[in-house]
Formats: sequence, structure tokens, C-alpha cells
Amino acid sequence: MTPKALLYKDRFFGNSDTLLLISNNCLYYRHVQGKKVLVVTNNTVAPLYLDKVTDALTRGNPNVSVENVILPDGENYKNMDTLMKVFDKAIESRLDRRCTFVALGGGVIGDMCGYAAASYLRGVSFIQIPTTVMAQVDSSVGGKTGINHRLGKNLIGAFYQPQCVLVDTDTLNTLPDRELASGLAEVIKYGLIRDAEFFEWQEQNMHKLMARDPRAFAYAIKRSCENKAEVVSLDEKESGLRATLNLGHTFGHAIETGFGYGQWLHGEAVAAGMVMAVDMSYRLGWIDDSIVKRVHNILQQAKLPTAPPDTMTVEMFKSIMAVDKKVADGLLRLILLKGPLGNCVFTGDYDRKALDDTLYAFCKS
Amino acid sequence: MTPKALLYKDRFFGNSDTLLLISNNCLYYRHVQGKKVLVVTNNTVAPLYLDKVTDALTRGNPNVSVENVILPDGENYKNMDTLMKVFDKAIESRLDRRCTFVALGGGVIGDMCGYAAASYLRGVSFIQIPTTVMAQVDSSVGGKTGINHRLGKNLIGAFYQPQCVLVDTDTLNTLPDRELASGLAEVIKYGLIRDAEFFEWQEQNMHKLMARDPRAFAYAIKRSCENKAEVVSLDEKESGLRATLNLGHTFGHAIETGFGYGQWLHGEAVAAGMVMAVDMSYRLGWIDDSIVKRVHNILQQAKLPTAPPDTMTVEMFKSIMAVDKKVADGLLRLILLKGPLGNCVFTGDYDRKALDDTLYAFCKS
Repeated sequence: MTPKALLYKDRFFGNSDTLLLISNNCLYYRHVQGKKVLVVTNNTVAPLYLDKVTDALTRGNPNVSVENVILPDGENYKNMDTLMKVFDKAIESRLDRRCTFVALGGGVIGDMCGYAAASYLRGVSFIQIPTTVMAQVDSSVGGKTGINHRLGKNLIGAFYQPQCVLVDTDTLNTLPDRELASGLAEVIKYGLIRDAEFFEWQEQNMHKLMARDPRAFAYAIKRSCENKAEVVSLDEKESGLRATLNLGHTFGHAIETGFGYGQWLHGEAVAAGMVMAVDMSYRLGWIDDSIVKRVHNILQQAKLPTAPPDTMTVEMFKSIMAVDKKVADGLLRLILLKGPLGNCVFTGDYDRKALDDTLYAFCKS
Repeated sequence: MTPKALLYKDRFFGNSDTLLLISNNCLYYRHVQGKKVLVVTNNTVAPLYLDKVTDALTRGNPNVSVENVILPDGENYKNMDTLMKVFDKAIESRLDRRCTFVALGGGVIGDMCGYAAASYLRGVSFIQIPTTVMAQVDSSVGGKTGINHRLGKNLIGAFYQPQCVLVDTDTLNTLPDRELASGLAEVIKYGLIRDAEFFEWQEQNMHKLMARDPRAFAYAIKRSCENKAEVVSLDEKESGLRATLNLGHTFGHAIETGFGYGQWLHGEAVAAGMVMAVDMSYRLGWIDDSIVKRVHNILQQAKLPTAPPDTMTVEMFKSIMAVDKKVADGLLRLILLKGPLGNCVFTGDYDRKALDDTLYAFCKS
């Protein structure tokens, strides 16, 4: 890793100004509890970064022993069977309560490693080293961990905070185009739900982000994390406000589940889901049509989808959305835009017809 | 359930006087969050109590719907495969974040249901209704939940507190003799580690407990829970003091793992483990031989084992104990008695030879 890395301090949210530039690798070590580390990564990321991270963890620290477990890459492996491989490795390596798990990879690795850390011996330390835009701007921050069930995404998991999150923009150089765009869906989301100024910055700078300009990216990551940290610090367990971070996600999760995990990337599904949420907000009369157009435009600039896959049906959306975690006592609550750009609501109080109209508008059957 | 039930208030530990007598079933309802309940029980307990509990939850509350999942009975089913049946049922029943899980059964059911509640949708409410002495005096109280791994007991889990623990001494009438004795091992433990007066009461009243005298049992349960609650309130996450509740458990877990889950009951293994811990404490010169004799005597009165199974070897003990959760940075810490009756230490600072001598004294090879 390089001096361009950004380091987030322990349980950083709640403090608004805790992004630090680090100048060398020894900072890893400060956050490692105990003498044993388990790096959890996948077969795509391991060839690129596993040696570097192992070196950074052990250089000058001969007492630290580093084990690793390399999982298959992809959302379709984010399940109990794969999670058990982490437990197997940890137990076979005789890791004790003072060990540290390190998540090296994208959101899937972070979610699985975090849940494994939350559950192993009823909880050990962990560090996030996200290597995708999606993980850097969203999933590594805020403590949501978990795995999928065949009937729905992230239905099994824990709220569990990492000791630190370490972001290195150099990792963007190895990221495939689709993965890069997928992460931008979450960046766009922050603008839409609470930061109109950031959305306007994105409208002016999307070409730089698409060109992988590291300065533009560092800014986008920082501002995204600040937005997320502020929301999470006010509502860690998602009693209300935190749910607004899920704009487009209820529709998006239905796409991921219905279309099959791994067919579309998470951000691609969220992008289509945001278009559907924006469409529904417009049908309810809660936003004007300029916002609808601007959302379409920016997603197209980011080369993200603006509609669900053709195979999705109204019935698929309805049945999958009925088991969403945001259902409370049978009522589906959604995040919808309301008012000027940068404002949203999390509510179950909306006209059911608008939801139906949106589903029929985007599905062939 | 009956007016003899005892109710522990929400997160009761920390208050020393929170045992309540309840007079009717409606108190169940007060602790149910949301409108949907999932009762998790097993095929031994379900025929005895499932209808009663379902009735208590719904009587006068037509809006509450009660689902149930009946698991196979026994420690050897306390694993990920069985846990997944709870998630499957919860998801198929479309239970949302406002639901409540109810653990109806012994320690295995409580541990699995608790961990399922901790993980389902990243955490839902749960209530413990323990039906064994073991669960009533120990496992239902204090928030430790989890499952076994083929390489060791309780290696995967969470610290997660129930909304309430409901104990009804009437359930003792349906409890097999071995299960009853197994629970008494934990009762005896509280006396040994911190409550000499309670140990003396047990010496005088063990015949009443063995005769299932409900008044004697109500007292033993209350005093056991008070002891546990006091310890847990001082150290919920087991940084030190709480570990003392595991007197005999490190040896005992090795017996359960080595001999095969379900061959011996937990309390039977703990009883033999306590004898080994007491033997080692005596070899270290930390206690006098009158304590050794009194421990043997009371365990024999309770019809509990005072030695591990013949098939256990020194090597089995050593290899299994090496993955115990109380190992820290490679050092095995043990709970040992030290000083007058009612005093113990949790320490890695002991002569390794005493441990070896104890293992060789109790194993044929």
C-alpha cells in the first residue's frame, strides 16, 4: 500500500473530521489486537494485494503470525457454506479471542469477514481494507455485516464495528470498469438523499471519476464516508434515519435476488432501483421532473443501468420485497425523494397505487 | 404455566432483587415485541409445553401470530445445519425486525434460539423460557448464545441479551433424573467459586433437591441466578471475572468434545471437570484436602460423575483444551480454587506440571 492511503480511526463515526493520510505501513499494526491475524480475501484480490498486506502486517513485527483464507469471488458465494470456511480456518489455526480478522476485498468479503469476526468466539477484532469503490464509499463503513439466504439478501448478520477502515485509492487501478461504476451508484445516492451540493459536484466531475482521476476519487470517497458516518452516528441500529441510506436498495435487492446473485453487481441493481424510487416519488407528486431527468443523466454518464432486467416481473418484485428487512408488522416502508434535490423520506405512508404503477411501468409482465 | 413461575425482568442483572412471582400468563405478552412470534423448541419439549406457551402468548391477543420450529433434541444437533432451520422458518414466515423469538427448552435450545435472534435481520427480540435446571440456573441467564463447531463447543455465537427469562419450577416434574443432576452441577459450582454459605446450604439440602422439592429448588434457582447476575453485571463480555463461572468447564468441554456431544450431559462433564480443577488446585497447594473431599461428597450425593470417561486420554484433553476460548496468545488460562471454600482465581500463572499430573491421574493413557 502507499502513502496515498486514507485511514479511518477506531469507531470513527460521530467525529466528522477523522480521515487521516498515512505515510507508512506500520499503522496497520497499531490496530491489530493480539499476535494472530486472519486475512479473509478472495481469489481475485489475493494475487494483487495479499502479499503486500501480509508484509505490512509482519514487517518489523516478528511476533505477529498471519494466516489467510481465500474464498471464491462473488455475491453468489456470500452464504453460510462460505462463511464456515472462515470459521474452519480460524479454528484450525487455533486463533483465540485476542486475534484480529482483516477483510481484504470488496463488499462481499467485508460483510462476510465482519460477520465471522462478530461470531467467532462470540466476537473478535477486525479491520476493513476495502479494495472496491463500493466498499470504500459504503459497505466497509458503518458496521453492517452479514450473509445472504437463498430467499433474500443480508437476512443473517450482525451490527459489528471494525477497529479501523483503511482505504487506498491505488486499488482503483486494478478495478474492472463495471465494479467502478457499481460503486459510483452509492456515491450518487449520497447526493440524492442528503447532499445536493455533492450531487452538483458529481454532475460536473463525473468524467474525471470515469477516468479514474485519483484526486477526484479521494474527494468522492471522503465526502461519501462523511455523509455515511454522519447518518450512522445518529442511528447505528437503523431505527429510522439510517434506512435512508437504502434509497433504491429495496427495488435493487429484489433485482439481485430475482435475477440471481452475481448476475448484476450490487450498484447496478441499486442504480435501477434508484430510478424506480425516483419514478415513484414523481408519481406521488413529491418531486418535480427535473430531478427525474438529472438522475437519469448522471447514471447514464456513470454507465449504470436505468431500468431493471427484462426478466423481472411485477410478481417477482412484490414477493421478494415482502421479506425486505424494512417491512414492519407487514407494512413495506420505502425511501423516497420528497422536495428539492437532496431531501428524502423513509415511510410506509404512501399511495399503494403509485408503487403498482411504477412496477408495471418498469416490468413487461 | 402456573402461578409458581418466576419472572426475571428485562436485562435484570445488575439489580440484585428482581425475581418476581407472576400470577397469570398475560405477562408473557408484555415482553413480546411486534405481532409475530417464533417459538423455537425441540421434539422432547414440544409435546409437553408448546401448546401451553402458544396459548399463553395468544390468549386475549388475537393480533399476535405464533409460528414454531421444532428441532431435534440434543447437544449433537447444536450446529449450523440446525440453526439454518430456524432462519428458514423465520424467513418463510416473513418475520420482520419487530418479531420476537421465544426459546422453549433447555440450554441447547436457548443457545441456538438466542444466536438465531442475534443474527436474524441483524438482531430481533427474544425471550427465554428454560425448561431444565441447567438452563434455569445458568445458560438462560447472561446472554451467551451460540453453536458448536465439530472442533469445539460454542466456538460460534454472540453475546445477546433476552428481553426476559421466565422460569417455572413446574417444568422440573417432566425432567429426567440425569438432566436434573446435570443442572445441579452448575448450582454446586456457584457455591465453590463465590458463595460458601450457599455450598453449605446445598450440603444440608441436597436430599431435598434430589427429591425435587419445589421450595428447595426455587431457592436454589434464585440464589444461583443472583450469583450469576452479579458476576455478569460486572463483566458481561468476559474480560476476566465472568470466566470464573467456567470452573470445571475447560476440562468439561474437552470431555464433551472428545467423548462426543450428547454422550454425557453438559453438567455431567462439568462435574468431572470440577473434580479435575479441584485436584489440580490441591496439587498446587492452593486449597486443603477437606475441600477436595467435600466436592467429591456433594457430587456423589447429586449422582454426578467424579472422573472423566475411561476413553479420555491426556492427549485428547491437551489438544482440545488448546482451542478453548480462554486461551489468550497461546496461554491456557484456567479457573482454579484458591484459599478457603468460596474463592477462586482465573489465571494462566500456574505450574504446568500440576496440570500434567492431574491429567495423568485421571486418564489411563
